[in-house]
Amino acid sequence: MARKNAFYAQSGGVTATINATACAVIETARRHRERIGKVLAGRDGIIGALTEDLIDTSRESAAAVKALRWTPGGAFGSCRYKLKGPDEHRAQYERLIEVFQAHDIGYFFYNGGNDSADTSFKVSEFAREHGYPLSCIGIPKTVDNDLAVTDCCPGFGSVAKYVATSIREAGYDVASMWRTSTRVFRLAVMGRHAGWITAACGLAAESEGEAPHVLLFPEIEFDEDRFLARVEDTVRRHGYCAVAASEGLRRPDGKFLSESGLRDAFGHAQLGGVAPLLAQLVKDRLKHKYHWAVADYLQRAARHVASRTDVAQSYAVGKAAVELAVKGRSGVMPVIVRKSSRPYRWEIGVADLKDVANAEKMMPRDFITADGFHITPKCRRYLAPLVVGEDYPPYRNGLPAYVKLRNAPVAKRLGSEFRI
Amino acid sequence: MARKNAFYAQSGGVTATINATACAVIETARRHRERIGKVLAGRDGIIGALTEDLIDTSRESAAAVKALRWTPGGAFGSCRYKLKGPDEHRAQYERLIEVFQAHDIGYFFYNGGNDSADTSFKVSEFAREHGYPLSCIGIPKTVDNDLAVTDCCPGFGSVAKYVATSIREAGYDVASMWRTSTRVFRLAVMGRHAGWITAACGLAAESEGEAPHVLLFPEIEFDEDRFLARVEDTVRRHGYCAVAASEGLRRPDGKFLSESGLRDAFGHAQLGGVAPLLAQLVKDRLKHKYHWAVADYLQRAARHVASRTDVAQSYAVGKAAVELAVKGRSGVMPVIVRKSSRPYRWEIGVADLKDVANAEKMMPRDFITADGFHITPKCRRYLAPLVVGEDYPPYRNGLPAYVKLRNAPVAKRLGSEFRI
Repeated sequence: MARKNAFYAQSGGVTATINATACAVIETARRHRERIGKVLAGRDGIIGALTEDLIDTSRESAAAVKALRWTPGGAFGSCRYKLKGPDEHRAQYERLIEVFQAHDIGYFFYNGGNDSADTSFKVSEFAREHGYPLSCIGIPKTVDNDLAVTDCCPGFGSVAKYVATSIREAGYDVASMWRTSTRVFRLAVMGRHAGWITAACGLAAESEGEAPHVLLFPEIEFDEDRFLARVEDTVRRHGYCAVAASEGLRRPDGKFLSESGLRDAFGHAQLGGVAPLLAQLVKDRLKHKYHWAVADYLQRAARHVASRTDVAQSYAVGKAAVELAVKGRSGVMPVIVRKSSRPYRWEIGVADLKDVANAEKMMPRDFITADGFHITPKCRRYLAPLVVGEDYPPYRNGLPAYVKLRNAPVAKRLGSEFRI
Repeated sequence: MARKNAFYAQSGGVTATINATACAVIETARRHRERIGKVLAGRDGIIGALTEDLIDTSRESAAAVKALRWTPGGAFGSCRYKLKGPDEHRAQYERLIEVFQAHDIGYFFYNGGNDSADTSFKVSEFAREHGYPLSCIGIPKTVDNDLAVTDCCPGFGSVAKYVATSIREAGYDVASMWRTSTRVFRLAVMGRHAGWITAACGLAAESEGEAPHVLLFPEIEFDEDRFLARVEDTVRRHGYCAVAASEGLRRPDGKFLSESGLRDAFGHAQLGGVAPLLAQLVKDRLKHKYHWAVADYLQRAARHVASRTDVAQSYAVGKAAVELAVKGRSGVMPVIVRKSSRPYRWEIGVADLKDVANAEKMMPRDFITADGFHITPKCRRYLAPLVVGEDYPPYRNGLPAYVKLRNAPVAKRLGSEFRI
């Protein structure tokens, strides 16, 4: 097979380690110059392919590419943009092939979640049906840890380490102050549908009485009275209570807790999040002083406290993706295969994209205790190895030294515009 | 002078490094066994002295004491409890002397903010007037950085490093997503009265266009229209806008922004914090997608990303306090004296407690830009050295290995109870 350029794009919410995958794709491609010409990245993800807005990564120095390994965010821009099926929006697929052809692209690497796996699969099928030679490889990434087939998702281990570290630290704070100050503390974490990040908070509680004392999972219907009773019991036994809650809590009527009727002075619905709502509840019903934190993007950008295991896996899937591509594979995704939990051993496997596409891996019920408020030993065994190891970025002037790439554009070769 | 025991207590909101000070006090006292017997710590701060609830730190191993250096929170418990003056509540002071006498205490180390300096000063005066030999040493600590005389406050450098790191990381995240997702991001930080922590966020913006783009200081009256115009201008120029805001923002009428009339479905005032309020404003007026985070206790407990400079200073003031005490000094506080900013050089000086007591050091107006939305180069010169250096805790199972002390109680010697 002749030498072809590669297209690489980041998709969906970024993570602390998606750039480690980008680093691996570029570094590995540079070691296969006989098969891969340039790696052209999509500016703002797949939108860059549709609008022929490509970035020439060959203009980046080896040092800059290396620094991607420890830089959070998406170096080329990512996007929330889902391609419809070829039947619904055939022009998008034709456009992709047109752009790929114009730029001599023979490899398509799409780094994202299950929507992206679905897109990669459809692009792969479309190219094959239309006789365009294209090796389509999906690369997993998501803080939500909800992809099928892979044992865990690159990006998740680092958010897990961040939230567990944070709730442990806040627990030490509250433990020292509850006698005259805050007795109930809540940390709101991501994960609207699957409680993996909430579960990760539970890792911090290694022995009885340690924070967090209560976890609120999106999988478990929120019962106000049971929750308050649990908090009160914890306060009685330990003096304080640290709670980690998913932003996706639902009431028995199925509505998100965060949509439960708060209004500002003008009657606008208040999108205040779960943490202040629960805090208000505790204050009104239990009369305890409370504090709350909302980690939001901090958790998925916290490269300063990334998991070395996660960084290694994020790099490994990028490297494997390129190696699969040069072997001529298409319609597949490298995944993490767990060989053993204790000691932790893993390797890279290969999944069919169609098995990953649009599936969602929920927390097994037996990962959550019977009362619904914590994780089981089985869950702990699964999660524990994912946060192991530190992988500090370099610091400059006391702050993490992250890289900003040049992101030099590739000259357009098509006369046509494409509206997205 | 004969050998006497020492009393040590932590006061007010804890920090990521107040235990480094406790570590220094105990380790230094153990090196002066000819003058200092045991260090007895107050359980839950000064309340422990009043209720004769003392902790025998001599029961802690050298390894446990050493681990205090990297453990956040207050190891013996802290409290929000201010002693009134001896004229108003003479019984409290008499009780302190009674407890000190019963436990052969000749040294009083009080680790806190300006209230604590005031208490230390009053205890010092009271003991002197009543002929009780007591060396009273205040030891500075506060994330707010608002103590007088000292150049900076132990505990501040680490929260500064945390918030600057966090807003930088979130900035990388939003920079990669704004085209199809969040355009405005806000991080709410502590500092109700003084904007030091808000200012520290500004360190992350080392060159034009970097996050944070807008800082909202409690010192600057919040003007909705000017704020929105600034956000819109930033979005136009850079695609997105990252804001760091103090929780203590005030409207022109002097009210806290967070008290501005949000009600829940039952008509209760909603204590939702500044971040969701500003977010709502941006959404309603500018129609941008926004996200917000509230760091709350995470920022002052974030020992995992502590400043090495801050840890060194936190240790140094504890060590100096003991050395001042064994020299027979009283009514004083060791402080940080800056000898030079570039290169950064500092040493320990000695302040009179009465000069520190109840004073508050606000941000100088020339540390804030004329438009009120960022820090000046002068401010940056002051802040920059305080976040320099990393001082990682050890990790176990992928999480920071913090210590929990035995905190063995000292047998009570007084028959009397004291109600606080």
